[in-house]
Amino acid sequence: MSRKMVYFFGDGTADGGSDQKALLGGKGANLAEMNLLGMPVPPGFTITTETCHEFFKHGGLPGGVEREITQHLAHVEEVMGLRFGDPSSPLFLSVRSGAPLSMPGMMDTVLNLGLNDQMVLRLAEIAGNERFAWDSYRRLVAMYGDVVLGMKPQDKKAHDPFDLILENKKKQLGVELDTDLGVRDWKQVVAEFKQAIVEQTGQSFPQDPNEQLFGAIKAVFESWNNDRARKYREMNGIPDDMGTAVNVQAMVFGNMGDDCATGVAFTRDPATGEKRFFGEYLINAQGEDVVAGIRTPQQVTLEGSMAWAGNAGVDQQTRREKFPSLEEYMPDVYRQLVDIYHRLEAHYLDMQDIEFTIQNGRLWMLQTRTGKRTAFAAFRIAVEMVEEGLISKEQALLRVDPEGLNQLLRPIFKTSEKNAAIKEGRLLARGLNAGPGAATGRVVFNAEDAELRKAAAEQGKTVSGILWDKIILVRTETSPEDIRGMDAAEGILTARGGMTSHAALVARQMGKVCVAGCGALDIDYARAEILVDDRVIREGDYLSLDGTTGEVFQGSIHTQPSDVLQVLIEGTLPPEQSRIFQQYSKLMSWADDIRRLGVRTNADQPDQCRNARAFGAQGIGLCRTEHMFFEGDRIDAVREMILATNPADRRRALDKLLPMQRGDFEGIFEVMDGLPVTIRTLDPPLHEFLPHDDDEIRELAESMGHSFDHLKSVVDDLHESNPMLGHRGCRLGIVFPEITQMQARAIFEAAANCIQRGIDVHPEIMIPLVGHEKELELQREIVMRAARTVQTEKGVTFPFLVGTMIELPRAALTAHKIARHADFFSFGTNDLTQTTYGISRDDMGRFVPAYQKLKIYPNDPFQVLDQEGVGELLRIGTSGGRATRPDLKVGICGEHGGDPSSVQFCHGLGFDYVSCSPFRVPIARLAAAHAVLLEEGS
Amino acid sequence: MSRKMVYFFGDGTADGGSDQKALLGGKGANLAEMNLLGMPVPPGFTITTETCHEFFKHGGLPGGVEREITQHLAHVEEVMGLRFGDPSSPLFLSVRSGAPLSMPGMMDTVLNLGLNDQMVLRLAEIAGNERFAWDSYRRLVAMYGDVVLGMKPQDKKAHDPFDLILENKKKQLGVELDTDLGVRDWKQVVAEFKQAIVEQTGQSFPQDPNEQLFGAIKAVFESWNNDRARKYREMNGIPDDMGTAVNVQAMVFGNMGDDCATGVAFTRDPATGEKRFFGEYLINAQGEDVVAGIRTPQQVTLEGSMAWAGNAGVDQQTRREKFPSLEEYMPDVYRQLVDIYHRLEAHYLDMQDIEFTIQNGRLWMLQTRTGKRTAFAAFRIAVEMVEEGLISKEQALLRVDPEGLNQLLRPIFKTSEKNAAIKEGRLLARGLNAGPGAATGRVVFNAEDAELRKAAAEQGKTVSGILWDKIILVRTETSPEDIRGMDAAEGILTARGGMTSHAALVARQMGKVCVAGCGALDIDYARAEILVDDRVIREGDYLSLDGTTGEVFQGSIHTQPSDVLQVLIEGTLPPEQSRIFQQYSKLMSWADDIRRLGVRTNADQPDQCRNARAFGAQGIGLCRTEHMFFEGDRIDAVREMILATNPADRRRALDKLLPMQRGDFEGIFEVMDGLPVTIRTLDPPLHEFLPHDDDEIRELAESMGHSFDHLKSVVDDLHESNPMLGHRGCRLGIVFPEITQMQARAIFEAAANCIQRGIDVHPEIMIPLVGHEKELELQREIVMRAARTVQTEKGVTFPFLVGTMIELPRAALTAHKIARHADFFSFGTNDLTQTTYGISRDDMGRFVPAYQKLKIYPNDPFQVLDQEGVGELLRIGTSGGRATRPDLKVGICGEHGGDPSSVQFCHGLGFDYVSCSPFRVPIARLAAAHAVLLEEGS
Repeated sequence: MSRKMVYFFGDGTADGGSDQKALLGGKGANLAEMNLLGMPVPPGFTITTETCHEFFKHGGLPGGVEREITQHLAHVEEVMGLRFGDPSSPLFLSVRSGAPLSMPGMMDTVLNLGLNDQMVLRLAEIAGNERFAWDSYRRLVAMYGDVVLGMKPQDKKAHDPFDLILENKKKQLGVELDTDLGVRDWKQVVAEFKQAIVEQTGQSFPQDPNEQLFGAIKAVFESWNNDRARKYREMNGIPDDMGTAVNVQAMVFGNMGDDCATGVAFTRDPATGEKRFFGEYLINAQGEDVVAGIRTPQQVTLEGSMAWAGNAGVDQQTRREKFPSLEEYMPDVYRQLVDIYHRLEAHYLDMQDIEFTIQNGRLWMLQTRTGKRTAFAAFRIAVEMVEEGLISKEQALLRVDPEGLNQLLRPIFKTSEKNAAIKEGRLLARGLNAGPGAATGRVVFNAEDAELRKAAAEQGKTVSGILWDKIILVRTETSPEDIRGMDAAEGILTARGGMTSHAALVARQMGKVCVAGCGALDIDYARAEILVDDRVIREGDYLSLDGTTGEVFQGSIHTQPSDVLQVLIEGTLPPEQSRIFQQYSKLMSWADDIRRLGVRTNADQPDQCRNARAFGAQGIGLCRTEHMFFEGDRIDAVREMILATNPADRRRALDKLLPMQRGDFEGIFEVMDGLPVTIRTLDPPLHEFLPHDDDEIRELAESMGHSFDHLKSVVDDLHESNPMLGHRGCRLGIVFPEITQMQARAIFEAAANCIQRGIDVHPEIMIPLVGHEKELELQREIVMRAARTVQTEKGVTFPFLVGTMIELPRAALTAHKIARHADFFSFGTNDLTQTTYGISRDDMGRFVPAYQKLKIYPNDPFQVLDQEGVGELLRIGTSGGRATRPDLKVGICGEHGGDPSSVQFCHGLGFDYVSCSPFRVPIARLAAAHAVLLEEGS
Repeated sequence: MSRKMVYFFGDGTADGGSDQKALLGGKGANLAEMNLLGMPVPPGFTITTETCHEFFKHGGLPGGVEREITQHLAHVEEVMGLRFGDPSSPLFLSVRSGAPLSMPGMMDTVLNLGLNDQMVLRLAEIAGNERFAWDSYRRLVAMYGDVVLGMKPQDKKAHDPFDLILENKKKQLGVELDTDLGVRDWKQVVAEFKQAIVEQTGQSFPQDPNEQLFGAIKAVFESWNNDRARKYREMNGIPDDMGTAVNVQAMVFGNMGDDCATGVAFTRDPATGEKRFFGEYLINAQGEDVVAGIRTPQQVTLEGSMAWAGNAGVDQQTRREKFPSLEEYMPDVYRQLVDIYHRLEAHYLDMQDIEFTIQNGRLWMLQTRTGKRTAFAAFRIAVEMVEEGLISKEQALLRVDPEGLNQLLRPIFKTSEKNAAIKEGRLLARGLNAGPGAATGRVVFNAEDAELRKAAAEQGKTVSGILWDKIILVRTETSPEDIRGMDAAEGILTARGGMTSHAALVARQMGKVCVAGCGALDIDYARAEILVDDRVIREGDYLSLDGTTGEVFQGSIHTQPSDVLQVLIEGTLPPEQSRIFQQYSKLMSWADDIRRLGVRTNADQPDQCRNARAFGAQGIGLCRTEHMFFEGDRIDAVREMILATNPADRRRALDKLLPMQRGDFEGIFEVMDGLPVTIRTLDPPLHEFLPHDDDEIRELAESMGHSFDHLKSVVDDLHESNPMLGHRGCRLGIVFPEITQMQARAIFEAAANCIQRGIDVHPEIMIPLVGHEKELELQREIVMRAARTVQTEKGVTFPFLVGTMIELPRAALTAHKIARHADFFSFGTNDLTQTTYGISRDDMGRFVPAYQKLKIYPNDPFQVLDQEGVGELLRIGTSGGRATRPDLKVGICGEHGGDPSSVQFCHGLGFDYVSCSPFRVPIARLAAAHAVLLEEGS
């Protein structure tokens, strides 16, 4: 290996810079950059991530690196005017990890290197502080034992051997705090620490500073592969082969005395995004003390300090004396720090997270990096930085994670109450965060009860002595017949099913809070109770769901709607009174200016449509007609239709449904005035509309005047081995053309009626599950015939399109033929993913855990579009369709339509629009803008 | 339209020829050709199929065609020296359909055109036969009324109005035969016929010959679209837009007197293929009389005549006097006919089906075409024509329909007994001809009984007083646990399932007779009986299945094995004693010389493998290991494995299975010595190995020492909504790597043991249902590790490959990545078709009838590979795989591997081999040769 392995920084120069994060890690690159900016940084050097690769490849440090390290160490010594291991003017070193992507706290650090039995005495002399020297030494010995010699227990529950010794010591002395220990005590502790090392590892704590240094470097490289780090990477999708850099830096001490301190700060508030310098520090402490939370940190700014005191119930007098702000305590250093933070933000053009140490009144910068922030903060900082002229609108858009917009829209738990609930042990279980937001309510176990009780509560009536004003519907899993019950509930909790299960899908479309697939629940319908371990939740008890995190709490927690919701949906807050709403509007208008992809919504009820418009939907991309089939009495007509044994009877039943469906469509067309509405003809297998257990069958048979045996045999006949691949989609309309006829007629009659009332309608009829062009050809004929008939009857003409969902591999593969009969394609990526993978999402639970563990799929393909496989079909389908029909309108209406990376992919394929659930419309709008920006950037 | 619409033929010249069948139809093209060969053909002309298109496009004869017809009619008149409609020398005409593909009897014909009230008298004079003239006239009137004026009833059951009149007339006269009517009677009949026309249509029978002619031409064009013709085209896959030509030809009369005759003949025997002139004729008759079967036709050759008399019990004296052969009756005409047939066969180089008429001792050829023949005959004629030097081996191969080879292999019912059964009304129902061949046996309703009773019978023991030596297993549908029962049965009959249902698939692989999806059966397991309408078949009753036709008979019918089977499989017939076997061997060796595609078989038992080798299989393309899981006691170990709750218990159960599987593989390797054996790791969902009804679960729980509740909950937990898309295939091996480990170990230990015994083994391990390269990567690692372990333990090395089944769209789409870990691909087109179409073949019954009626799919995609959709994935998968790995071995192991058109497609994609059930191996070998020949010809 002939490449440079070690990069120097210090004294206003540096071999690297902030554009070399992949090679130097984030910390190393920024340390170099701060040097170049002339900021006070303890000199040091960074060993590259490439060296880390070599380290793991060869099982040790590559040849030549030791020589480079020695060279650069000399340079550090020169800058500091000190020498490593030289008792006359000793230099001490820190060794820290620093990966290209931040992995806070996951890897190891060794500080105070260079101390040994001799040097500790020298340090005491130099610092004039014997206690400090021994305290520093005991820290080194413990860190070295833990990190380099592997004494840190792997089992989290086990005690660190050094902590045990220290605890015993304190017990023996009858004291509580480390600061209560004196020099002699620390000396004894160090001796016991060293003894423990010998006993446990069979070797001594090394006295040779160089041995310490190289041991620490190797151990920090090794820590890339410790359990914590591996797990963190797995959770955060960081590749295992990225590797870490190692930073070796001259030690500066924040714990040499009262003119020393250490702290961390943010250039803006990371929680709210507010533009104020925000930081905490500790006097006479090392960095780890701030993080460990043993002592209460003090505020950097006076303003922050005063606010803190107010909250903590500390009077200002006491505050000033015992917890002064840095602004008060070291005003010069504070001013220097403020100057630096201004320069850093102006340089990096983003909010920074900085670490500093003050040694004997002198400020040293130890780290700067782009600060982590909540989605709220990200959004506010981005918009305000544009207003401040720091960044462009495009940059601002890219700073906001589309997914994070959710936080602006969802009702939330009051933070204090939620924290209290956690403290009180009321966190019951965790499931999938399937429908974001927070909801609290009383447990009900079936949809019908939910509906009836909610209706009663709305009239102020109790049922079983309870006013069921807020309901949490708890089901093992949900099905289409639960729709109305789900609508009546604040939140839905299921024991089975994934992120795209029926419950999750419908909840997101309705904007309901949902925690799905919560396997810890043992639901007993018969006893109307849930068992979680030894806890029992009964019908009527309160549960609280955090659908943003997947947490399920016992008892109630108060929620509040977000600002944006209060303006857009509830209309309870005037827009001009909400800064968040105004910033949201501004950001979305920038996004709309840039994006080329249309954004529609999946909705099938007027109120959903109204919400979607408020969120900026430019039409409906998927209106599922079957949801309407469950409303009110119409399920009876649907069942009559299913039980009909000849076309005439079937038509008679359909005739009853026609006016109801027409009314539904009129309601939707009204709300969507001027925008396209894509309506899918009947899709689910007919057995979904019939009951399945004998009692329900018996009841239905009686009410319909059929014999139980007959109805039972119809239900049995409709049973399918693989309903997902059975008699559904356009296969229904092919076998029972009357159904398509009725639906087309209802759509067109509704269109004609609306036009006569001055409403601008654009129906787009979508035929589902087409696999062969002939299917679409035949269904299209039926639709066209209905259009002609209605136009003649009503004497009105209206524009309309007929197209198909591309949701089977064969449809995509033969898109060039199918396009002959289609005005538009809409990719139904839910089913397309199922068939392309050959995976039923209802059944994947049994192998998904193993698959996740083995990292077989990079993402859940039902949430993030599989660009390689399913995406290839989108590409084939789009190019095939447009080869036949260049003006073919192309969209996507699967769950992926609201997933940012999938939106970007669709943009790349030249889609006309994406369609997603109403609450994801803003996310898709922003993602569509990202797609343009990332495309131009690439 | 400026193209020529009418083509003349006659007098040794012709505008067209036999290479213009698309334009002139088969009949027209061959009439032209016979003219060019100088054979006596009544002159005439052909109106082209293009004119037919125009006719349907414009709803009438296109402009200009009448002029062309008139011109050519003049030419015909010139050749005949007669004039159409001229009483002094009248010409009469026939108008016949003639499509490019033969559609015998489906379209209409009008003869004797030109006759009218005046001309009938003239014809009587000229023929010197008044009765003949009136008989001819009444035929014209009736045909004209039926065909041109639309009086033929559409309802088959309704009576033809002219037949009714004739029947009444005969009743009135007290006679039975048409020939019993005299001149006066025919005159009256004609009058009544004409009256009926007026009454029913409101118009008169036209007296103008030209009006007759054009009316007939139009009617014959129209008949292209009559119900019969449409249905025939639907059944035979003939495109609706092909159209028919119309042939107008001078009439010659075979019914003018006793020096007249008409007949049909084949140049070789169409049933057996034997090289002998074979024909039938009638003296003093028109062609339709031979077909109608009213009179017993006489033999053309003396030899045939004598044989006929022998069979019919007619003594030679009577025969000579009453039923003389044409050879005896008109020796000169016979010699001329023999000369013509020799010339026709030599010209067309194929067996011909000819029609002739003799008018006043003069021979006229009315038609020649390639004769239809049984598969037996086709095969024999092809081989013998090569031996005779008439055609090349390549031509011979193309003459034999690969599918037809089935007839050479399958046991068959004794024809006389089967005919008797039909006459006796014992034909019970029809199902799908899922497993060709004939079988007879006693009804048994479950697999276990079948197995036990068969075993008892083999020891000469009765059960319930019956010796169950031949069993027909009757099931609603079969599942893997029925395998052994199926093996014990002669034939399998199911009420549900299609051509690729489990029963059909396994039966074909086993070479069992199978009739599947016989919906007429109402099976009552509890009462152990089948109801078909009002007939009851009880356990132990005899049933006979014709799996070649799908017929199910009550009672027993004797079968016999085919010659080829007797030589190849049974070894009961010395090869040299069977002409058929020798011809079969010859044909197959030609096929093998030409084909480039390898042919393997799907087999998982040594005897199946043995059969497959006898049929020429060059290896095993798919050995399903799960079938072995049901044998003997091993199902217990399998269930232990499933019920294990931790890897250790699972491994313990698998350890029991290991030696059993190893033994299986040894048996197979032995038989397949020197050839590759592709073994698929476990594929089906685990619940297939557990019982599902409560009683069986209780029984199993007791025998395994589990509680009922526990076992029941395991079964319930394993339940899947869509098992086809659930936890199966490699997903099992990913979650339970121990299973793959055990199977790989069993394969390799068997390989090592065999090698030590001098057997040449080539295992190819195939991982099923891979959708993502990582799955294959992980499973391959397990297999490779097992190989290394076994090779080390046994001290033996062996060659082996690891590959995957491509049976999910995603696998094909990402083949370039999957190929990184694969030595071979085998396309599993059964599952690939299901996922590409999104159709479960178990559930398609509900919409398939509508789909067939609407002709949505050109073929059943589970039988004939869908080249457009699924085939596109084969193309993408193959080119993707070979882009990564040019030497990738590629095959197919779905049912399609034995379908000729699919074999051709695979050849075109450059596959290395196809794999099919043992009995289809010869078919695939021939189809592979066809593929080469058709490729070169294109």
